[in-house]
Amino acid sequence: MISVCLFGAGRIGRIHAANIAARDDVELRYVVDVDQASAKEFAGQHGATVCSVEEALADTTLDAVVIGSPTDTHSDLISRSARAGKAIFCEKPIDLNIGNVDDCLAVVKECDVLLALGFNRRYDRSFASLKKQLDSGLVGAVEMVTITSRDPEPPPAKYVARSGGIFRDMMIHDFDMARWLLSEEPVEVYATASCLVDPAIGEAGDVDTAMVVMRTAGGQLCHISNSRRAVYGYDQRIEVFGSDGMLRAENERNDTVQHFGADGTLISRVPDFFIDRYAEAYRRELNEFVDVLTQGAVPTVSGIDGRQALVLADAAQASLESGAVVKI
Amino acid sequence: MISVCLFGAGRIGRIHAANIAARDDVELRYVVDVDQASAKEFAGQHGATVCSVEEALADTTLDAVVIGSPTDTHSDLISRSARAGKAIFCEKPIDLNIGNVDDCLAVVKECDVLLALGFNRRYDRSFASLKKQLDSGLVGAVEMVTITSRDPEPPPAKYVARSGGIFRDMMIHDFDMARWLLSEEPVEVYATASCLVDPAIGEAGDVDTAMVVMRTAGGQLCHISNSRRAVYGYDQRIEVFGSDGMLRAENERNDTVQHFGADGTLISRVPDFFIDRYAEAYRRELNEFVDVLTQGAVPTVSGIDGRQALVLADAAQASLESGAVVKI
Amino acid sequence: MISVCLFGAGRIGRIHAANIAARDDVELRYVVDVDQASAKEFAGQHGATVCSVEEALADTTLDAVVIGSPTDTHSDLISRSARAGKAIFCEKPIDLNIGNVDDCLAVVKECDVLLALGFNRRYDRSFASLKKQLDSGLVGAVEMVTITSRDPEPPPAKYVARSGGIFRDMMIHDFDMARWLLSEEPVEVYATASCLVDPAIGEAGDVDTAMVVMRTAGGQLCHISNSRRAVYGYDQRIEVFGSDGMLRAENERNDTVQHFGADGTLISRVPDFFIDRYAEAYRRELNEFVDVLTQGAVPTVSGIDGRQALVLADAAQASLESGAVVKI
Amino acid sequence: MISVCLFGAGRIGRIHAANIAARDDVELRYVVDVDQASAKEFAGQHGATVCSVEEALADTTLDAVVIGSPTDTHSDLISRSARAGKAIFCEKPIDLNIGNVDDCLAVVKECDVLLALGFNRRYDRSFASLKKQLDSGLVGAVEMVTITSRDPEPPPAKYVARSGGIFRDMMIHDFDMARWLLSEEPVEVYATASCLVDPAIGEAGDVDTAMVVMRTAGGQLCHISNSRRAVYGYDQRIEVFGSDGMLRAENERNDTVQHFGADGTLISRVPDFFIDRYAEAYRRELNEFVDVLTQGAVPTVSGIDGRQALVLADAAQASLESGAVVKI
Repeated sequence: MISVCLFGAGRIGRIHAANIAARDDVELRYVVDVDQASAKEFAGQHGATVCSVEEALADTTLDAVVIGSPTDTHSDLISRSARAGKAIFCEKPIDLNIGNVDDCLAVVKECDVLLALGFNRRYDRSFASLKKQLDSGLVGAVEMVTITSRDPEPPPAKYVARSGGIFRDMMIHDFDMARWLLSEEPVEVYATASCLVDPAIGEAGDVDTAMVVMRTAGGQLCHISNSRRAVYGYDQRIEVFGSDGMLRAENERNDTVQHFGADGTLISRVPDFFIDRYAEAYRRELNEFVDVLTQGAVPTVSGIDGRQALVLADAAQASLESGAVVKI
Repeated sequence: MISVCLFGAGRIGRIHAANIAARDDVELRYVVDVDQASAKEFAGQHGATVCSVEEALADTTLDAVVIGSPTDTHSDLISRSARAGKAIFCEKPIDLNIGNVDDCLAVVKECDVLLALGFNRRYDRSFASLKKQLDSGLVGAVEMVTITSRDPEPPPAKYVARSGGIFRDMMIHDFDMARWLLSEEPVEVYATASCLVDPAIGEAGDVDTAMVVMRTAGGQLCHISNSRRAVYGYDQRIEVFGSDGMLRAENERNDTVQHFGADGTLISRVPDFFIDRYAEAYRRELNEFVDVLTQGAVPTVSGIDGRQALVLADAAQASLESGAVVKI
Repeated sequence: MISVCLFGAGRIGRIHAANIAARDDVELRYVVDVDQASAKEFAGQHGATVCSVEEALADTTLDAVVIGSPTDTHSDLISRSARAGKAIFCEKPIDLNIGNVDDCLAVVKECDVLLALGFNRRYDRSFASLKKQLDSGLVGAVEMVTITSRDPEPPPAKYVARSGGIFRDMMIHDFDMARWLLSEEPVEVYATASCLVDPAIGEAGDVDTAMVVMRTAGGQLCHISNSRRAVYGYDQRIEVFGSDGMLRAENERNDTVQHFGADGTLISRVPDFFIDRYAEAYRRELNEFVDVLTQGAVPTVSGIDGRQALVLADAAQASLESGAVVKI
Repeated sequence: MISVCLFGAGRIGRIHAANIAARDDVELRYVVDVDQASAKEFAGQHGATVCSVEEALADTTLDAVVIGSPTDTHSDLISRSARAGKAIFCEKPIDLNIGNVDDCLAVVKECDVLLALGFNRRYDRSFASLKKQLDSGLVGAVEMVTITSRDPEPPPAKYVARSGGIFRDMMIHDFDMARWLLSEEPVEVYATASCLVDPAIGEAGDVDTAMVVMRTAGGQLCHISNSRRAVYGYDQRIEVFGSDGMLRAENERNDTVQHFGADGTLISRVPDFFIDRYAEAYRRELNEFVDVLTQGAVPTVSGIDGRQALVLADAAQASLESGAVVKI
């Protein structure tokens, strides 16, 4: 039986907690959250105890921590948990600052603990199937990767101001997908972007409509497009084009109903909410973390993966600001 | 150079004429139609001459006739053309009365002339591809065939009154498809039907909504559904289910555009008009007739095929009237 | 907190148990199964107690029973549970014999207890969405319903022998769908069928390939096709054709990946296993049962629905045996 | 009756000739081609006369010319035809050199003749439908355009050497699509590319795998990807993403057949050959030219459109060579 402490009992933390609860071999022992009242009620439902970070990490029989607290607490909690010898699952990103990320990963390495990172899309049934088919050689050598990622609605401008910008906050998922699907690391990044959705995002110093093109040393090309608004739902698609064919992961649909009317055939809507879209992916991601702990496997997403995605996001931001291609 | 006389310069006759005109090796020599004025103008456009049936058939250098005149003239024109030694392409059906059909086919046999019948669906790119894949053994032994056929709008009641009823007029195409796709002839036919679309059709003694189930001696099953109304367009689909899989021919679409809106994704409409849907099929059907004439091949659809489809239509009508299964 | 006893801890019983366990407001108190050892282990995982039928029903504080035991125990367990005043959720069917069903429903009525029946397809996201759109009037008045239902593989002949035949065992789900989607009850049933999949099924006195056509008093038509084998997966589709359009529920897919290769585009497979296909439906069905108990709502599927589906299955069997249409 | 001279009786010229022949109101009077023997046979089939450029243009009763000869003859033939007062339909491009294009367009303007350019994709049924829906405001303001264009097989290296490079030879179609779909002209172009398909293309100084990103003054973004190889067929797709939704034009398929097998569902192949894919578009494009001549309408594609697409292609080439963004 693995014992776990949850840092952060907000929306995403509760998803992880529910996935922990569904397993027989994991015990949610502690819940840590700044909102004591909410944490207490939530912990009660799961038979867990509310405590402080110090108290949790001081429990030498505690096996692991799951970090779902705000981004600016991640690197500190990772470092402290690592020093306490705990296995760590952390929501992306490690930090918005590459220096902090490096410091944090150094601690993890020094303490020799497990760090798994929550890039949930790698666990999506369709992206995972695409990756598996790609690795089987079905479409030959990768030549181009095209990633589309659009949010149904823009976040509040207040959120945007602290988000690190669209590349570090939103496109970082796509940078991880790109690295996962390309056969080698990108060495050139070009970004262009606009503020077309919400002027408040521009006032907060960010953009809401962005395109990035990357190139690897061997000449593989990758395109990513992001928008903070898509009235038709949460748009998440990938195309990998290779020497022997193409693999394409299309959007999920709310159901399989087709309405044949006078105007054409209406197919059901794409899910709006990222938690609906990736519910199964969150479950598989947490299950993998537990399996790694109990069976000694290697996690799909490492701390280095978190770092490298941030390197690409930083390069994109720099390219946008300079108007020039950035070499890595 | 093959010389041809067209009987009937109405809508369908003009399609055949245009397909003849597109070939270098066929000459449209005569046009015969009760509407002399219209025939004259049309013949002029094609460099053809308007004449009577007698005059056309008396031309001993005329190779072939294409019959696109009203149904009640078909068997007579076939017989007379056969006696004049002409190769014959005739629109379906040969006749609505099985006795007349048999008499007509006897003359064709006696005169040993070519008779090809216009079951245009066999030439549709998708149904032809499905048939080819089926014949290649891709889905193993046929177990079930399901045919959907719905007109966008009901015909005028006046037409219905002389049509021979939905089974002989409309479902006869589907009976031909069924025979073509099943590995053996149906031996049992059950029909049920209603008048749900237009009461005038019921007053004319016919139905507008019908389902038929057939069984072959070896136990293959076939289902056909017809409606005289489909607000979403001309609905023409086939499914063949076999021991090793299924082949399905879906509807054509007006184009490949998808509109992603707040309500879902709208795919373009199914074509409304049978002549749009089967334009290419009409072309291929007429080309085959000419190829048969010039190269001595065997036509896809024979007079016997026309007869057997009518046998099934008659059985369906009898089943509907008696409420019992009809054995053939 | 609702307390529940589970009768039958086999495959389907365990699904219901897992769905009960996921709720905070339901307690799985007892597990009853002929296999004591297996029941004990399973009950232990859920903190439940293994006991006999008598012991469970004697607990006056027990609220409800969930019946997932073999078919031939259903009517007896329903009756006894009803007499003990328990709310009842029972897997389909109530019984294979219409007399037993009527006796059982009389007891339920007399005891005035809740009986909900497990026609799981009504809870499928796509079929439920289709029904909702249909009820909204989107396609006008229903004219034709077409239901396709094919199992990936035939059951063992031994199972077939006790199953009551394909109409009562398999097509009964489709009869329920038909009743749910047609605006009125079928009054005529015609069935035709073959044994094309497995001769052992024929030797067991059953068929494995079947088509049924039904008609309502108002002239609505319904077609159902069943096969005991579909190499491409568990094929479950519905089409409802109305005066103003068509609604179609297509199969689910394992994922959204498309492989563009030299032969065409390969779309991912249909799920094979009914429990995968309907996992969410099972969850929603059990949740509804609990909601009905706690909030006093009306269940979607009543005992009468179970009875009427059997009436149609019996009629289909009689039609197959007589070769004639059966009036209801 | 409009009289036309065809310059160039090769593959594309013959398509235009066949489309001319299908109309009653156009006469193919002359055919000019360096291959006299082939031209003579072809002209004979259409009742046309073989002659020289001089002879054709000296015929003062000749209305129009259709230029389908090699690219390096276009600007000269346009200029001479303009000076002879003929209406001109010319295959793309006008020239590979922007100076020559400008000189040529100056002559056309001075002579005040009609010049229509053969950007055939604007006449594709799906792209035209997408454009129409876009112009209707269906998806609001355009924010992103994504264009995918891949040839089934690389051209011979010999062809590549004289082609002007992938941007001027192949992507020029996509630049025209981009200009047509964006609400304003691109002002920034960034290109990156590789030689991944055929080393001989690299040796000829060109690339075979390319991505371009463009930005308009108002912040609209456009992405184009090109490859000289796609084993699954001629891949031609467009996505336009706007403030109120998305429009997507998918590939055409050879037919509508779906094969449900053990591995999944196989959908029919994308057409391989650009002439099959755009057969209907070529017909509509030529018909429009004739309609413009006879009815005085405005052609969809002007000489300026040809020029501006070349400006973007030149910018992409310059960006690729410099590694920097090019402002226009």
